[in-house]
Amino acid sequence: MAQACAAAMWAEDGASRGLGMVLEHVAPRAARLSMTVGEAMVNGHGMCHGGFIFALADSAFAFACNTQNQRNVAAHCDIFYLRPAAHGQTLVAEAVQRAEAGRSGLYDVRVSTREGALVAEFRGQSRSIGAKFFEDRP
Amino acid sequence: MAQACAAAMWAEDGASRGLGMVLEHVAPRAARLSMTVGEAMVNGHGMCHGGFIFALADSAFAFACNTQNQRNVAAHCDIFYLRPAAHGQTLVAEAVQRAEAGRSGLYDVRVSTREGALVAEFRGQSRSIGAKFFEDRP
Amino acid sequence: MAQACAAAMWAEDGASRGLGMVLEHVAPRAARLSMTVGEAMVNGHGMCHGGFIFALADSAFAFACNTQNQRNVAAHCDIFYLRPAAHGQTLVAEAVQRAEAGRSGLYDVRVSTREGALVAEFRGQSRSIGAKFFEDRP
Amino acid sequence: MAQACAAAMWAEDGASRGLGMVLEHVAPRAARLSMTVGEAMVNGHGMCHGGFIFALADSAFAFACNTQNQRNVAAHCDIFYLRPAAHGQTLVAEAVQRAEAGRSGLYDVRVSTREGALVAEFRGQSRSIGAKFFEDRP
Repeated sequence: MAQACAAAMWAEDGASRGLGMVLEHVAPRAARLSMTVGEAMVNGHGMCHGGFIFALADSAFAFACNTQNQRNVAAHCDIFYLRPAAHGQTLVAEAVQRAEAGRSGLYDVRVSTREGALVAEFRGQSRSIGAKFFEDRP
Repeated sequence: MAQACAAAMWAEDGASRGLGMVLEHVAPRAARLSMTVGEAMVNGHGMCHGGFIFALADSAFAFACNTQNQRNVAAHCDIFYLRPAAHGQTLVAEAVQRAEAGRSGLYDVRVSTREGALVAEFRGQSRSIGAKFFEDRP
Repeated sequence: MAQACAAAMWAEDGASRGLGMVLEHVAPRAARLSMTVGEAMVNGHGMCHGGFIFALADSAFAFACNTQNQRNVAAHCDIFYLRPAAHGQTLVAEAVQRAEAGRSGLYDVRVSTREGALVAEFRGQSRSIGAKFFEDRP
Repeated sequence: MAQACAAAMWAEDGASRGLGMVLEHVAPRAARLSMTVGEAMVNGHGMCHGGFIFALADSAFAFACNTQNQRNVAAHCDIFYLRPAAHGQTLVAEAVQRAEAGRSGLYDVRVSTREGALVAEFRGQSRSIGAKFFEDRP
């Protein structure tokens, strides 16, 4: 189920693909994506613009909160930047559900370099919008 | 001073330029940027990926908190998504300082469509890193 | 209407009264409360525990988001601490609505000393729970 | 070391004691506190004012980020409310460090009922202020 939802999302999500993101793993309420910091993502000092770090975390959050055949959207996100990321580094975002209540879910996403240095911590709040990816099978 | 800082930042910031952002206005502790939602930014339903809305707000925040010839970086950001943005819409991000204390500043950024529909509210916390853009003139 | 809602809330809210809060002003989607930092609120250095500063802001937010005869509850709050508050100081919390979308509202609350020194900035997200304070008059 | 820091903080912290908090456990970069929802903490429906739930989480955060003989203060906190808490319930706040970078730390605090029902999720960002609790022993 999680993989079918992810496949449906991935097919739609030209933005994540366009940034070179790779969907590495998906499981119920969890997802891992990676992205290499390209030339178009950095400033004059070779450091990644925070918006792309956020986009990677946000995509991992979106995949994780859409693994139950219930469409969810982001209501609120926040991010702490802990360390800069440089041109050429591969960043990995691990999203896991932390809590849920009613139609809301809370997800934590950790963004690290492939070598394990912590770059940012992201937290996202999802809301179910009452739609499905596909009909439940009989 | 604000414009000299903005020019120095803009020259370095290939990422914002690459996303088609336009620096519309800069003033002490304030900035306005715009960006049109392009095809590479949307999902299969034609709606803008949240990461690009965030990136626009984040860039407006970065310009606003770097208007005093003191380099500042983002420590924490959060965003509330209020309305989706569609392919072809032009988004405008208005950043203003809300508070400062010691080396920290607090900035609010409102993202709207050009027609004035509110899309997202962003808040960023900056930290001064003790560096300058250029030497103070005598 | 705003005042009738506030009166209904105030009658219920023993917690805010018990902390010595004063409801100074209420208007549609806005409220101002004050509180003097008492001995029970401070640590050994005479500085106010952050939880009481938060509680004042949270109460101002609650009054502001409940001025339309629609019961709202807090879904998410965040606070930046800018300056400590000392024993004996009177703190004033000014809450105003910043945005709304669907059943959610976004409110900003500024906490200052009576003399105007900024102590904290709070942002709260409300959710309507579909209940009213009293029947609409015919 | 963690316990010596906690003892020093507890002696100073009349506010937490005054709310009936109990320091149940402390370890390096972690702490657990509990508090029973008293009559002075509830509104007319018997539900705990969010400010007291926040105060419990904030105190657990404060103890956890002050276990290394380096004084830290709260810079930013946010809280998601997941479930109301009722008069007479005992709430338990578990704080653990999630990340650190330079002088900043990031802590997660989970607030549950004693029976394990999740009430709120809190995240706090600490800043070291360059002071100690006591001289390091030779």
